[in-house]
Amino acid sequence: MAESIYSNYPPDLSPAQQKFLVTSVKDWAIQNGLAVRPSPAIIPTGADTNGVLATNAPVTLFPSPFPRACFEEATALQKIYNELYAMITCNEEWLGKVVEGLIEVDDFVSNLWKVHLDVRKEGYVQNLSLGLFRSDYMAHVPPTGLPALKQVEFNTISSSFGGLSALVRQMHTELLASPPGSSINYPPHHLLQSGVPPENTAVETLSAGLAAAHEAYGESKSTPALPLCVLFVVQETERNVFDQHALSTQLKTVHNIPVFRVASVDVLDQTSIPSSNSSRPLLYQPPHSPDSTFEVTTVYLRAYYAPDEYKSSRDWQARTHLERSAAIKCPTVLNQLSGCKKVQQVLAEPTGPDHLSSFLKSIETTLVERVRDTFAPQYDLSINSKGRDLALNPDTALNHVLKPQREGGGNNVYKSDIPDFLRSIPESDWRGWVLMELINPAANAQNVALRNDGEVIRGDVISELGVYGTILWENTGKILHNEQGGYLLRTKGKEVNEGGVAAGFSSLDSALLF
Amino acid sequence: MAESIYSNYPPDLSPAQQKFLVTSVKDWAIQNGLAVRPSPAIIPTGADTNGVLATNAPVTLFPSPFPRACFEEATALQKIYNELYAMITCNEEWLGKVVEGLIEVDDFVSNLWKVHLDVRKEGYVQNLSLGLFRSDYMAHVPPTGLPALKQVEFNTISSSFGGLSALVRQMHTELLASPPGSSINYPPHHLLQSGVPPENTAVETLSAGLAAAHEAYGESKSTPALPLCVLFVVQETERNVFDQHALSTQLKTVHNIPVFRVASVDVLDQTSIPSSNSSRPLLYQPPHSPDSTFEVTTVYLRAYYAPDEYKSSRDWQARTHLERSAAIKCPTVLNQLSGCKKVQQVLAEPTGPDHLSSFLKSIETTLVERVRDTFAPQYDLSINSKGRDLALNPDTALNHVLKPQREGGGNNVYKSDIPDFLRSIPESDWRGWVLMELINPAANAQNVALRNDGEVIRGDVISELGVYGTILWENTGKILHNEQGGYLLRTKGKEVNEGGVAAGFSSLDSALLF
Repeated sequence: MAESIYSNYPPDLSPAQQKFLVTSVKDWAIQNGLAVRPSPAIIPTGADTNGVLATNAPVTLFPSPFPRACFEEATALQKIYNELYAMITCNEEWLGKVVEGLIEVDDFVSNLWKVHLDVRKEGYVQNLSLGLFRSDYMAHVPPTGLPALKQVEFNTISSSFGGLSALVRQMHTELLASPPGSSINYPPHHLLQSGVPPENTAVETLSAGLAAAHEAYGESKSTPALPLCVLFVVQETERNVFDQHALSTQLKTVHNIPVFRVASVDVLDQTSIPSSNSSRPLLYQPPHSPDSTFEVTTVYLRAYYAPDEYKSSRDWQARTHLERSAAIKCPTVLNQLSGCKKVQQVLAEPTGPDHLSSFLKSIETTLVERVRDTFAPQYDLSINSKGRDLALNPDTALNHVLKPQREGGGNNVYKSDIPDFLRSIPESDWRGWVLMELINPAANAQNVALRNDGEVIRGDVISELGVYGTILWENTGKILHNEQGGYLLRTKGKEVNEGGVAAGFSSLDSALLF
Repeated sequence: MAESIYSNYPPDLSPAQQKFLVTSVKDWAIQNGLAVRPSPAIIPTGADTNGVLATNAPVTLFPSPFPRACFEEATALQKIYNELYAMITCNEEWLGKVVEGLIEVDDFVSNLWKVHLDVRKEGYVQNLSLGLFRSDYMAHVPPTGLPALKQVEFNTISSSFGGLSALVRQMHTELLASPPGSSINYPPHHLLQSGVPPENTAVETLSAGLAAAHEAYGESKSTPALPLCVLFVVQETERNVFDQHALSTQLKTVHNIPVFRVASVDVLDQTSIPSSNSSRPLLYQPPHSPDSTFEVTTVYLRAYYAPDEYKSSRDWQARTHLERSAAIKCPTVLNQLSGCKKVQQVLAEPTGPDHLSSFLKSIETTLVERVRDTFAPQYDLSINSKGRDLALNPDTALNHVLKPQREGGGNNVYKSDIPDFLRSIPESDWRGWVLMELINPAANAQNVALRNDGEVIRGDVISELGVYGTILWENTGKILHNEQGGYLLRTKGKEVNEGGVAAGFSSLDSALLF
């Protein structure tokens, strides 16, 4: 059934139809802030020196079909996933053991861990943590049977695209429903006639999480009391600013909370912790209003997630500075570490202790098993392990992908390339890699993408579903706020997945459930 | 008092304050569709061949002070102005006399008039007309006494910027009010602390006018009946598309009316009038859905207003084609002609028949006199006229501007340049010009503009207030819908007004009333 859904979708477009859709989409995108700042590849050197230009975010012209059962399962499990990663973060001993296994091969993990150890030595002053999470999945199509939800990764830091994906959903919905009375924006197709993409409350959900933390922080810890704010820490050269602004606008206009943005390079200049105050409030002085001082209740990191963001010891110093403050961190260093691929692999380990059940003691067994069912089989490559056998055997390698544990640590290695690749690197480095059984998405899915340079590409695609959740908890394990809402459908040209070809595309999309 | 308001406004900006405001404004603009497609001056040749890039509309960083009494008078009079121009349009004989005096010097007016004569010969099939008007004013500061409202021009076709000006008002309002609890986006200044720009309902008002016409059109005149729509006729190379989209989005989502856009060059290809149907419905076939046909209730012209838009006889043919159809035109050719400067001058003529009172028979005298008070003295240059004396005398010329009657007919000529300029052109051409007493705006008004290339310019400015109104009437003079709502404040660098220097600026603004 799934195959037949995809076989004649999306419908063909005449040149006039494509021109109309492309014009509609590119104008809609700018009218509604579904936009990004253009990359240097689009803007010639020396042009736009003031950085005013914008372009549409890369989007699909059509919403993509996605199995309803998988979509509903992903949303049904998100609050349990939120709890799982909160509980992992609370279990410093368990997490520390996983991390210590990586320290030799992953200096990024090692440095993050050091930040935690330094702050632990001094003593944490904030026992609340906030998570804005996104769990990413594919709909795996087995040789026989129904599509199954399989997790690709779990993001615990800077989970992005909530703002823009809600807009893509709105755009597709308006295109499907207009003009009023006679929907002719798309060529006729039963899937396009029959439904609308599910509601996408990512902005509301993620902002409500930040607002819950802001509220839970309580009163100012300064004397005299200072006005409170939320601080977005962002990359200096961020191009995905409008995605972030969607959240800050919601916080300001709906929750009535002051929000400021600080580039990570400016953290040490613009924020401070008064040494005289043992509560360690994080104070922010806006450069545009130097006489004002705000106390930061919540630090929302849209930076500091990748190794290349830490260019010098000053960046590590800034991260430590935030970590030791009284502000609620979204996320803490420990929560960031809980999102590493190794944790995912250990949870999915089919033999040995049942970590999953231990972390989810309060959850009914059937639900825990449904979470476990979303794990794709994955392995480490230790001596005499099953993973090592599967990776080195050319026949079994064909069904796997080798992923670097370390963010930004290199590209995935696929299928037949795995054995030779492993033999080309020192065996001591193998523990920096995780072997994962390939998820097989629908073989014949297609869509048409409008890139942010305006090029239109039709081709075979793979759609990845991300589900957003947010959780606020005490380090004792007590949960104060746990919500799910909103999703991201990201649709990639197939060749991108097989090694990152520049001609491909990765587009924001929305889901037509079937 | 007015002088003192302007003397220390806007407050100075430190580099950090300016950086913050510029970043906030340029991001807000893209997030909310306060955008334009960039001009070729910003985008190097060969870049952005797909036309995806956008930039902020040129805007002021601060709202501009504007005298409350003038603002309120302009909004109070708008519905009377709507009626005035509807009544002028109904009086073909009167309008024809004005137009006939221009035919020899203004071939654009002459050709428009021919369109009317052609359609009149065949007979009009639509007795309703729609006006979406904008009356433009300055606050004139006399040597002594209070500022007075003086009309610059009255626009009866393609009155633009309603969509974007409402957004500028929203942006300034949000900047003034945030962050919640402690407004520090602007440096402290009593004007910025005390008020917000008045509500701007331009989008609602203009769209409601189009919706009223759509409704009044009645049922389809085709057999079998066709679905009805509104048609925006636009320029092929329009860069101000997001201003237009603000109206079409409102029509679609609030009024539930199908809206299509046709470039003026495509009118003859994409619309038709079946010769077999004496009601002459205007049919539109969307190229992206060739099997669909819609009947156009209302043609909204955002094109055909300037002579250079009629490149060949085919363009005149297209205009005639629309005019003879059963669609309600916004505007008709006659209504477009009523907006010519010569009409404004004849109305303002201090001697001779009181045209104003004749057109506004139903309006109380005191209100008619308030309308008359908004006229700046203006004159023709006929033999032995007062206008000719004032223009040729170097002393009196100093207090005047010479404006070409014809749109796109050349630049205004100012003050001491007037006598020599007139002597340099044939006397027979003088009737193509109108002499207008200079309006003196506040001498020391300043603001800071963010151009759409990102350059920031501070300088002396002149603000022009435009007030929107919409009216639907029968050619018998019966009025079906007459509303006022929304405004445009356009703030120009002073040097622009004195001859169009490229280094200057013309920005969208909002008003702080004092």
